[in-house]
Amino acid sequence: MEFNFFEGSTDFINNLRKGNALLITKSDDKVNAMQIGWGYMGYMWRKPSIVVAVRHSRYSYELLRNSEAFVVSMPVNDELKEAVKICGSNSGRDVNKIEKCGFVTEKGKIIDVPYIKGCLNYECRIMYKQTIDSELIDEELHNLSYKDNDYHVMFYGEIVAVHNN
Amino acid sequence: MEFNFFEGSTDFINNLRKGNALLITKSDDKVNAMQIGWGYMGYMWRKPSIVVAVRHSRYSYELLRNSEAFVVSMPVNDELKEAVKICGSNSGRDVNKIEKCGFVTEKGKIIDVPYIKGCLNYECRIMYKQTIDSELIDEELHNLSYKDNDYHVMFYGEIVAVHNN
Repeated sequence: MEFNFFEGSTDFINNLRKGNALLITKSDDKVNAMQIGWGYMGYMWRKPSIVVAVRHSRYSYELLRNSEAFVVSMPVNDELKEAVKICGSNSGRDVNKIEKCGFVTEKGKIIDVPYIKGCLNYECRIMYKQTIDSELIDEELHNLSYKDNDYHVMFYGEIVAVHNN
Repeated sequence: MEFNFFEGSTDFINNLRKGNALLITKSDDKVNAMQIGWGYMGYMWRKPSIVVAVRHSRYSYELLRNSEAFVVSMPVNDELKEAVKICGSNSGRDVNKIEKCGFVTEKGKIIDVPYIKGCLNYECRIMYKQTIDSELIDEELHNLSYKDNDYHVMFYGEIVAVHNN
């Protein structure tokens, strides 16, 4: 079966914008889930792909920098949507958010990062990453987002699997 | 009227992937249309936005580097879809592609770049741009895209207007 990677991409972007999205990261035996609201979906280097933005200060960044993959999970029922908010208000350094939220995870089908059951899951292989450059950002955006110099790293992930189960 | 910037974003990404998309650029009195196939749509810095990838060697890059805006135009009828291919096989340095393709342009509604009538048009204000860094790219992608060191610049444009007329 050939999957249309972009089926539902309207939902992807609108879910993202509403913060109804989780970034799942893994390094060694540590797994974290972070609520995300910013990012992109598209096509680059002949790969259907997702770009996620993660600040240097985040626990997810610690895990991602040693990793080759990530998952974006989008809850499709109200119970899971509520649970996402818990992930937005705690750090994975202090709390095992996967457990706290009651998420049931499964081993990734293609990559070595788990996904959350009951979500629409995008498994992504990191193909490129680049930090937002303070010298290139205009003043409005700098004041909005980077007054504390906590810059985002843009992680470009090839979508290697999409599933909803 | 509030426009849903992401309405039809599935179409955006699929059109892009098929190369059924034009990047319109303007600097002083010069206007160019380039066929594009790579890029992203999403949400970043609280802005609905599009990222387009333009190589340093392109005439469009010459125009964009002195500009604050661009338009992405997606043909919605077969005649225009055919005309896009002309834009993919000529450089704006040699040919006025807008004229050659028989495109009818209109002054942008918000930005100082024209759009093409009969297309779905996204007017974008450039908020950030960054060159793909050769030191950060993996070998597979380098060999695929950058053997001649002609890197892409990623132009992040806030979507400030969308119209189909």
